[in-house]
Amino acid sequence: MTPAVYATWSADVLARVESALHEWVPASAPAGLGEAMRYGVLDGGKRLRALLVQAAAQAVGALDSAIGTEAALRAACAVELIHAYSLVHDDMPCMDNDVLRRGKPTVHVQFGEAQAMLAGDAMQALAFEVLTPDEGEGAGVPAALQAHLSRLLARASGQSGMAGGQAIDLASVGHALNEATLRDMHHRKTGALLRASVQMGAACAGLTPHSLAWAPLTAYGHAIGLAFQIVDDVLDATQPSDTLGKTAGKDADANKPTYVSLLGLDGARQEAASLLQQAHDALGQTGLSTAALAPLAALAERIVHRDH
Amino acid sequence: MTPAVYATWSADVLARVESALHEWVPASAPAGLGEAMRYGVLDGGKRLRALLVQAAAQAVGALDSAIGTEAALRAACAVELIHAYSLVHDDMPCMDNDVLRRGKPTVHVQFGEAQAMLAGDAMQALAFEVLTPDEGEGAGVPAALQAHLSRLLARASGQSGMAGGQAIDLASVGHALNEATLRDMHHRKTGALLRASVQMGAACAGLTPHSLAWAPLTAYGHAIGLAFQIVDDVLDATQPSDTLGKTAGKDADANKPTYVSLLGLDGARQEAASLLQQAHDALGQTGLSTAALAPLAALAERIVHRDH
Repeated sequence: MTPAVYATWSADVLARVESALHEWVPASAPAGLGEAMRYGVLDGGKRLRALLVQAAAQAVGALDSAIGTEAALRAACAVELIHAYSLVHDDMPCMDNDVLRRGKPTVHVQFGEAQAMLAGDAMQALAFEVLTPDEGEGAGVPAALQAHLSRLLARASGQSGMAGGQAIDLASVGHALNEATLRDMHHRKTGALLRASVQMGAACAGLTPHSLAWAPLTAYGHAIGLAFQIVDDVLDATQPSDTLGKTAGKDADANKPTYVSLLGLDGARQEAASLLQQAHDALGQTGLSTAALAPLAALAERIVHRDH
Repeated sequence: MTPAVYATWSADVLARVESALHEWVPASAPAGLGEAMRYGVLDGGKRLRALLVQAAAQAVGALDSAIGTEAALRAACAVELIHAYSLVHDDMPCMDNDVLRRGKPTVHVQFGEAQAMLAGDAMQALAFEVLTPDEGEGAGVPAALQAHLSRLLARASGQSGMAGGQAIDLASVGHALNEATLRDMHHRKTGALLRASVQMGAACAGLTPHSLAWAPLTAYGHAIGLAFQIVDDVLDATQPSDTLGKTAGKDADANKPTYVSLLGLDGARQEAASLLQQAHDALGQTGLSTAALAPLAALAERIVHRDH
């Protein structure tokens, strides 16, 4: 994909996802809750998880049908809702105590801690609402697909995935972690949801863990998930706060272990490059055409070669 | 149901639910997260929601098949996980700041605020994991039923249900609410999950909103949900803390509106009695046999005639 083609592709995806989130995250939720939810999830972030869902869905042909297209849009919004809720809770005083996110005051600064906690809780529930449309909503996304998407998302979000990784992170402050433990933490904390994004996109064409392309796509998701975190650590150590849109050097200051502190800057960069190659190799094993895989390949490149 | 028959029935249900929760809430979750989750959900509470799921499932014949039995057990555990997570978050300093629950230190007192928030988040995800077993788990609960149960639970938990009710509650401190707003708050905050418990039990026999018994069972859930809250307010105003197992009079002290403050003690008791009659009337419209409905009828009585 040329940069121009990628730009057109991603702009189209982001416009559809943003529009759907505007529709599905209700301003009408009572007593300011909807306002806090919308503040936490709309108009923000790179939408990497949504892009992965859509790229994977396109690779396996899910977007050739109305049902697959609807399912992939719901899956993209659901993973973004989970990601956004985790940031809202992560930023709170009892966790990272961040006051700024994407250049704006964090949700608890804007709406208070209680409303921020509730908004995060409601965003998690909404993710599963979006995945399980009733008759009359959702253009007939089949129940089997609804259940499969919910299964993938719940497992990636919970104790064996994101929440479990956050617990390891919490326990690690001020402790020396070896590379294996750091890797395990990141595979759960950010990797699980990135991997699930790819799997959910694939599921939208009816793929299951028995399908031939499932394991290679999962390996791709695994590799780019870890690469994403390593590049995050590299950027945190090398970029100023205003480029990142958040406070730089915070993890190192908090004596949290990072890939840079464990492997050094050069070692971390080499590891990211190696994972990028693994991601491309995995795509080569899916049996899908280069054209179909182009968005996934472009996303892997962007994850590693980014400056914020 | 005689008291002895009810005691046998409920003891059997509670033993099966407790055993399943012990199995499904993993002690192995990393970095103390599993311990916090188990502390928050195991061995505690009246399990009213689980009893409602099981009573409704029994009423419609879901427990006559292995698949319906498995589904109803999963539904019962899932609603208890959602209820338990809401209590963990509700007790935190930024919400109700409660240090005692069921006579034990609350989760954040025992494990710290950050772990309590994560445990609640992971418990919500686990509820949806429990509802969406993979092949090899779950005795073949059909995908359509998995999707239906997830849909009912997500809608009862989120902005239009429990979380929305909590937001209204949060905004109401120190404000005069009229009865309509108070009723709306409770229909969401506690009513939605109690109603969903009944619906989820019914869904385990394949009932859908198109089924004849669906609307009466929903009306039953609606009535007992509101009755439950009114009785809670009456007990809060009349019983000592050690009978309740929590701090009595707290809502009144916080200048939160209650049914007792709005209707007076006698008015609240009359309203509860009227709702109990509505619940019985609704059961009479299901077309199900008195024997099949006996556990639901007994639960309605217990909800209104309890002392804690």
